[in-house]
Amino acid sequence: GDAWEVVDDHHLEASYEFPDFETALAFTNDVGELAEAEWHHPDISLSWGEVGIEMWSHEVGGLTRADFVMAARMDRLYAADGE
Amino acid sequence: GDAWEVVDDHHLEASYEFPDFETALAFTNDVGELAEAEWHHPDISLSWGEVGIEMWSHEVGGLTRADFVMAARMDRLYAADGE
Repeated sequence: GDAWEVVDDHHLEASYEFPDFETALAFTNDVGELAEAEWHHPDISLSWGEVGIEMWSHEVGGLTRADFVMAARMDRLYAADGE
Repeated sequence: GDAWEVVDDHHLEASYEFPDFETALAFTNDVGELAEAEWHHPDISLSWGEVGIEMWSHEVGGLTRADFVMAARMDRLYAADGE
């Protein structure tokens, strides 16, 4: 969950691993709550044991500071969930 | 949300539309609850105003009756959310 990649100079991408579906869904909700609070909404892919994130700033069609701030916050959420 | 497709003779695919992120997240949770209850877990893609589903039976590497039952239940959840 600590390996964000910049893809095509356009978006950030990361994948977080979980022991099962339920914990992956819980993280999806954490990310969703953050997205609503920041009014910055990533694309989230949820499957058994994995949550994938793609994120960019739609208003500029690419990356802004907001994306990197959100990425760091998701890493902290993930670390907190693992505690 | 009523247009399930069989793709590559291998999985079911559908896309449900929502007015915003919050309602899409709520539907994701409904589907997640169903998945846990049925112990049959689709891949879910959540983005602003849309939830995509891909589903198959991993134990046979393709579709079984369980997939079609789940598909129908998701349609009912979607219809219920819209009420």
